[in-house]
Amino acid sequence: MNMERTLISQTPEKIGEKVSLSGWINVRRDHGKLIFLDLRDRTGIVQAVILPDKKEAYQKAKTIKNEFVVSIFGKVKERPSGQSKEGESTNKLEIEVEELEIISATEDDFPFEISAKELKLNAQTLFDNRNLSLRNRKINDIFRLYSVLLDSYGRAMRADDFLEIKSPKILSSATEGGANFFKIKYFKREAFLAQSPQFYKQAGVGAFERVFEIGTVFRAEPHFTTRHVNEFTGLDAEMGFISDFSDIMDELEKVMRKITQEISQNCVKILKEYGGEILNEEKFPRIKLEEALKILKKEYNKESLGIDTDPEGERMISDWVKKKYHSDFVFLTHYPVSGRPFYTMPGKDLRLTESFDLIFKGVEIATGGQRIHIYHQLIESIKRHKLDPKDFADYLNIFKLGMPPHGGWGIGSERIVQKILNLSSVKEAILFPRDVKRLTP
Amino acid sequence: MNMERTLISQTPEKIGEKVSLSGWINVRRDHGKLIFLDLRDRTGIVQAVILPDKKEAYQKAKTIKNEFVVSIFGKVKERPSGQSKEGESTNKLEIEVEELEIISATEDDFPFEISAKELKLNAQTLFDNRNLSLRNRKINDIFRLYSVLLDSYGRAMRADDFLEIKSPKILSSATEGGANFFKIKYFKREAFLAQSPQFYKQAGVGAFERVFEIGTVFRAEPHFTTRHVNEFTGLDAEMGFISDFSDIMDELEKVMRKITQEISQNCVKILKEYGGEILNEEKFPRIKLEEALKILKKEYNKESLGIDTDPEGERMISDWVKKKYHSDFVFLTHYPVSGRPFYTMPGKDLRLTESFDLIFKGVEIATGGQRIHIYHQLIESIKRHKLDPKDFADYLNIFKLGMPPHGGWGIGSERIVQKILNLSSVKEAILFPRDVKRLTP
Repeated sequence: MNMERTLISQTPEKIGEKVSLSGWINVRRDHGKLIFLDLRDRTGIVQAVILPDKKEAYQKAKTIKNEFVVSIFGKVKERPSGQSKEGESTNKLEIEVEELEIISATEDDFPFEISAKELKLNAQTLFDNRNLSLRNRKINDIFRLYSVLLDSYGRAMRADDFLEIKSPKILSSATEGGANFFKIKYFKREAFLAQSPQFYKQAGVGAFERVFEIGTVFRAEPHFTTRHVNEFTGLDAEMGFISDFSDIMDELEKVMRKITQEISQNCVKILKEYGGEILNEEKFPRIKLEEALKILKKEYNKESLGIDTDPEGERMISDWVKKKYHSDFVFLTHYPVSGRPFYTMPGKDLRLTESFDLIFKGVEIATGGQRIHIYHQLIESIKRHKLDPKDFADYLNIFKLGMPPHGGWGIGSERIVQKILNLSSVKEAILFPRDVKRLTP
Repeated sequence: MNMERTLISQTPEKIGEKVSLSGWINVRRDHGKLIFLDLRDRTGIVQAVILPDKKEAYQKAKTIKNEFVVSIFGKVKERPSGQSKEGESTNKLEIEVEELEIISATEDDFPFEISAKELKLNAQTLFDNRNLSLRNRKINDIFRLYSVLLDSYGRAMRADDFLEIKSPKILSSATEGGANFFKIKYFKREAFLAQSPQFYKQAGVGAFERVFEIGTVFRAEPHFTTRHVNEFTGLDAEMGFISDFSDIMDELEKVMRKITQEISQNCVKILKEYGGEILNEEKFPRIKLEEALKILKKEYNKESLGIDTDPEGERMISDWVKKKYHSDFVFLTHYPVSGRPFYTMPGKDLRLTESFDLIFKGVEIATGGQRIHIYHQLIESIKRHKLDPKDFADYLNIFKLGMPPHGGWGIGSERIVQKILNLSSVKEAILFPRDVKRLTP
């Protein structure tokens, strides 16, 4: 079987030809005389049939179990029309096997049937058996969409002249407060894992005006929710020479629109499979936090101390915006100074900041705003936040050089996928999620 | 000055028009009557001139220092031909300033002149003042090339149907030996930082056949060399259904060719500035390690215990290959079992492995090979390496499911940039490098 490998997606063009396919046994069905194998590769699934007169292949097929890796050689045929299923083009085909080679066997029986259309597992089983569950086509598809997201983010940013940077994840000190940092032993001293590239992307503005980063973000927060994990992939950006913070929202809106458009176009099947709807709205409504709180009180009779830490409020305002503006996105703006980091630019009303959260389908997926770019103002703000400027010496040095007005955002990439595909937890959008209790596999 | 911003690169199309530009003062020159400002933005540098009769602007320009952030408004003119410099098209232009606005000032005098064509600084000064040194055009350009590298790697991988994944960086145990892992405090327990995505990208083969990752790699090695850092960005890939490990080298060769082609095309000016030469060779020579050692002995009279840990040997063999095959790349293959991790596939000669290093201009930039994909063989190999299969339970689980023959590579992205631009240390290719002593800025 030294023929070149044909991918399953290529078989519809090869009807009547003999091909060599490789992949996994998705399902094996023994019909007494005939043995059917559903073969799966990265491009699709196709049925193969082994007749008893192909003795060698038939004997091997008798011993095969699901998830064996095999190569088959045989002729591509159209199925008798009665048997062909709806859907993918390979469903109308069948490979009549002449040779079969077992490449590798499985060692265990599996705790669940991965060929099921829908795996109905609790989180523990799903993640304990992650290597197995990822082989399920529907779960597998989550990460095909995620790869499109990563690609489209990078392309959207480059198209607008943002430079891709990689900032350090090991820090000498835990700034921005300190509670949410993981501590590491760095040779003979102590160091910390970056909980955002904030300071470095601002430095990037000084050097490159516009930068973006796709990188790991570490958060030592002991949350047990469906929207938090302790390690995720952040999509960050920072841009200089803005007029005010609406420039940042304009840019983020544009980027999110490009991302959702690309996903709409490239993931049609996956969106359908998950009932995922993408509206491709032109403009995202922008509502001041204060107004949003009034709406919640009036429309939902909800008293709130602030939306930032209140998932229910985010869901409600999202609902309201969806009904009123037919938008899945909404910017909430002008968060109070007390609820934002010291580097956030205050607004004309000094109690409020030039900042925003972007809510998508009821969940905050991004936080951003304008930053203070004037050295003295930044020192004042650090003091006002009861922090010590000495602890921020390296960061402050950036602002001793001339810095333009600037701002940016941080996006939690996996939350976008979670919400697009209606996943019950963000963890389902992560290949090998990490939470307070889980560090395996 | 509420006119829309024009970028400096757009000025050659606007001769005779009035424009508004924003950026940094690269150099200010006071000629008594005339004041000249070289204005710098992300797209280039252009000269501006302020005549004394523009009183307000002139007074402001008197107070300006290098690195101030300003906006200017004025007419784009061609310079008198005698004054125009060679090179960039903006060198032939001059902005006759009518209005000038100081957006932000600097707070310090600088330890060196960043407008110099070449900053001749020692490493300490260069990195202690990283925010300043990054503003130097030549240093700045390193990261423009790096961004092209990241982009081209992703596109090359996607073109060949590799899926982009993000694997966890926090691990519950330090496998692969353990010495080179940073330890972290993870809530109430101990955890480790990933020193490669090895196990996860192999898991990725089980789920997706072909995967790649661009991610942070942490190495707790106490090296003090020009080729090592403790945190870098790895370009990893892993592919299933290979015939043998030459498939992996074929793929890596193809990817490196695409990367170097894109850099050749998109970074002409930067390559010239650094005297960086790219050969765009079709095929990279492949030499068995054993043969390479013979060549070193014969041609350079060098005795070697193994090339892997011997930078001098790598430089010599690179020299020899360059002379003989006119190639900057060379694959060294078939490393001994003792020098490779337990998961490396042994060859027909059981003392050797189906593995390679890729040497580029005298430095190892990638390591790769075929992995063992059979469960029992892997257990044997773990034992033979004096390790305990119990410590690898999660990893071994991957191989209880059917796994195809597979392999891949890990590339150190910054080393590619270092060698293309002839930088004296890999640290120069990292925005904010981390080594044993340096964790700042």
